[in-house]
Amino acid sequence: MPPRSVSAIDPGSSLLLTDLYELNMLQAYLEAGMTETAVFEFFVRRLPPTRGFLIAAGLEQVVEFLEGARFGEAELDWLAASGRFSRAAIAHFAAFRFTGSVHAVPEGTAVFPSEPILRVTAPLPEAQLIETRVINLLNFQTLIASKAARLVLAASGKMLVDFGLRRAHGAEAGLLAARASYLAGFAGSATTLAAPRFGLPVFGTMAHSFIQAHDSEEAAFAAFARSRPENVVLLIDTFDTEAAARKVVALAARLKREGIAVRGVRLDSGDLADHARKVRAILDEGNLREVTIFASGGLDEETLLALAEARAPIDGFGVGTSLTTSADAPCLDCAYKLQEYAGRARRKRSEGKATWPGRKQVFRRFDAEGRMTGDVVTLEDEAPAGEPLLASVMREGRRIGTLPPLAEARERAARELRRLPERLRRLATEPPYPVEIGKALVDLAAAVDREEG
Amino acid sequence: MPPRSVSAIDPGSSLLLTDLYELNMLQAYLEAGMTETAVFEFFVRRLPPTRGFLIAAGLEQVVEFLEGARFGEAELDWLAASGRFSRAAIAHFAAFRFTGSVHAVPEGTAVFPSEPILRVTAPLPEAQLIETRVINLLNFQTLIASKAARLVLAASGKMLVDFGLRRAHGAEAGLLAARASYLAGFAGSATTLAAPRFGLPVFGTMAHSFIQAHDSEEAAFAAFARSRPENVVLLIDTFDTEAAARKVVALAARLKREGIAVRGVRLDSGDLADHARKVRAILDEGNLREVTIFASGGLDEETLLALAEARAPIDGFGVGTSLTTSADAPCLDCAYKLQEYAGRARRKRSEGKATWPGRKQVFRRFDAEGRMTGDVVTLEDEAPAGEPLLASVMREGRRIGTLPPLAEARERAARELRRLPERLRRLATEPPYPVEIGKALVDLAAAVDREEG
Repeated sequence: MPPRSVSAIDPGSSLLLTDLYELNMLQAYLEAGMTETAVFEFFVRRLPPTRGFLIAAGLEQVVEFLEGARFGEAELDWLAASGRFSRAAIAHFAAFRFTGSVHAVPEGTAVFPSEPILRVTAPLPEAQLIETRVINLLNFQTLIASKAARLVLAASGKMLVDFGLRRAHGAEAGLLAARASYLAGFAGSATTLAAPRFGLPVFGTMAHSFIQAHDSEEAAFAAFARSRPENVVLLIDTFDTEAAARKVVALAARLKREGIAVRGVRLDSGDLADHARKVRAILDEGNLREVTIFASGGLDEETLLALAEARAPIDGFGVGTSLTTSADAPCLDCAYKLQEYAGRARRKRSEGKATWPGRKQVFRRFDAEGRMTGDVVTLEDEAPAGEPLLASVMREGRRIGTLPPLAEARERAARELRRLPERLRRLATEPPYPVEIGKALVDLAAAVDREEG
Repeated sequence: MPPRSVSAIDPGSSLLLTDLYELNMLQAYLEAGMTETAVFEFFVRRLPPTRGFLIAAGLEQVVEFLEGARFGEAELDWLAASGRFSRAAIAHFAAFRFTGSVHAVPEGTAVFPSEPILRVTAPLPEAQLIETRVINLLNFQTLIASKAARLVLAASGKMLVDFGLRRAHGAEAGLLAARASYLAGFAGSATTLAAPRFGLPVFGTMAHSFIQAHDSEEAAFAAFARSRPENVVLLIDTFDTEAAARKVVALAARLKREGIAVRGVRLDSGDLADHARKVRAILDEGNLREVTIFASGGLDEETLLALAEARAPIDGFGVGTSLTTSADAPCLDCAYKLQEYAGRARRKRSEGKATWPGRKQVFRRFDAEGRMTGDVVTLEDEAPAGEPLLASVMREGRRIGTLPPLAEARERAARELRRLPERLRRLATEPPYPVEIGKALVDLAAAVDREEG
């Protein structure tokens, strides 16, 4: 067992939740006196094959992390005891604060490859040390918001709820997936903690085990309805879906006399379109036209589109694993790269991983109907036609004003989905959305290459 | 902003990190007086197409979670304020403790579909409430340990290091992926916090940005070597890999006079086999035969096998995203299901999701060389030939003795990989490993079905 002080370290805010080389780099920078201003940008190199656009998310968690970034006592003790760091480095760790600036595209904005999503301007050791966690936070929520946006488009206006905590990759992933999917247009989540933490609407009905533990399905339905009279949604697939639907009809009449209305039923297995049609017919014949059908169980964009195509009479969906793991594309090819140091533009030229140097901005153009037509990535101080995407969010280590609340980011995402080119709204990935690299940027890259020989 | 008390809730240990329906179920069970003993089992229904076996992991975190499971003040305040729960339920939440028993296969054990990995025996409301987080913890570490085991087999004895924190799904995923991959045979992780938290060896050298921030690659190499003389591993792909290797040769001679030895170089992009051969030749010609070559950049089992096939002169590998997201299979079709309540076996018959009822055990048989030949899933009290896999780990809510330390789980995993059938060691997935369902279990399932009609 580690000492209690160590086990009390919260990984979500610990500066030790970083690649060891970041700490090594910090000491080396100090020894070389390299503490001038560095500019790093976070961007996605290329999209997964099944993505045509991304929705930026995670900025609020990055800002919180940067504002609170310090080494605690247990962490400093470990750093000293590790024997890996000089006394000067340890003293620097102890005094560490993030004092830099951050520019970023607002959460909920549609973004594309090569576009900076966040820019950090800070003394080099600070900008370096925060790298791993900044990537970790932006990568994950952008990944999930982008997946969720596809599901929202595929659901054509039907209600979606995040059911994916159990298969999310750990605690933080489950909680932040609830946030990111709500931001992208989900109605809410089954994850209870998302309500107190982020103000999300949370949803929950009944478990299969509740039905199994009772001596009959009817008894379980009745017990649940009496326990939750305000939200009677009955899970009907534990044994035989259509037989259970007929039990619901019989029960609903009895419950009505008690003043309890059945609101919905949930399907969670089998051929959902077929079951939904049969269950709808049973409910309608039983005079339960107002009872809704909610479906879950292995859903993703493909199945949602197929259910829409089949005109399955389903009113809402719970989406779990495919959402919270972004199962078809569980990672983004993203990076946080040095673009300028001590006033000089910098560039990495590694094969397949070359970067565009300098401080950049993205300008977006729209057609007469307000649909996005293309972006251009420029140097920060250029002013081509279009709307600039990056804005200043932190200065001297503190946020500027307040960040937009989650509801506003959600509205922005909804607007962005409306403004996407039609092929992207249809979830096509080809041809890609046009992102042009401005001429001044191309020229600067060539100049940096010449200088570095 | 949520009230401070709420933002201080640690999602990793909060009982609100659960599906809302678990809390609803608890109240309904209390109202129905259903507090008798329930038995739930966690198992995997079927393997992802690219997996032939799994390595069980995450038990230690489950035991910690169960021992510490309680609602804190901020959580109880929210539960009361939500208006969703009765006073009796809130009082029950306030007094909540896990008082049950747990049986499980030890961490590091190879497991297969339909085999219970963990069994919980507890009063029904307790066993229900913990469902979501138990699945969340076991699913993730088993997922990662299983992916890591494949990488270990593909690397044929070469050193592997986890580089995947930045693209892991959040903080906990990064930290627990370090643990799970070490358990499965990785040498360690780049994730610093894994050292104080789990005693893992941690590794780190230098960043591309360190090189870019210097005015020349040579200057960066020299500065790094002087800052970390005990571990000079130089990253040589920032601009031109072979040119950088020649710079290393020139520098090594100068450093030698200062008493500093270059230990290794790292490749991170391009055709790794081709670069490794060219770099090896340059180093050898430069009398740096003892300098090792370490490679990273988009590696997975396929690329490791291809590099081995190509006899690329690479001494060790950093594996990132493919490991910590289990990119080719980012989720397991796993479940935690009620198998018995109040002394009666229970069964779910949903299409494609039917379960085997009752308390179960798994017996494993071996051939004369000690290789696994097949498993049988039986009722707990049967005693067929073979080694039983599940053992008692918690009783009355407390662990029995101590859990095996991580080093022991790692040894077990290594032994398990040696004992796998040869086709599974070669990463084949067909034919599947034989898992037989014992006759008494088949009979019990039929009896339960008859009873439930």
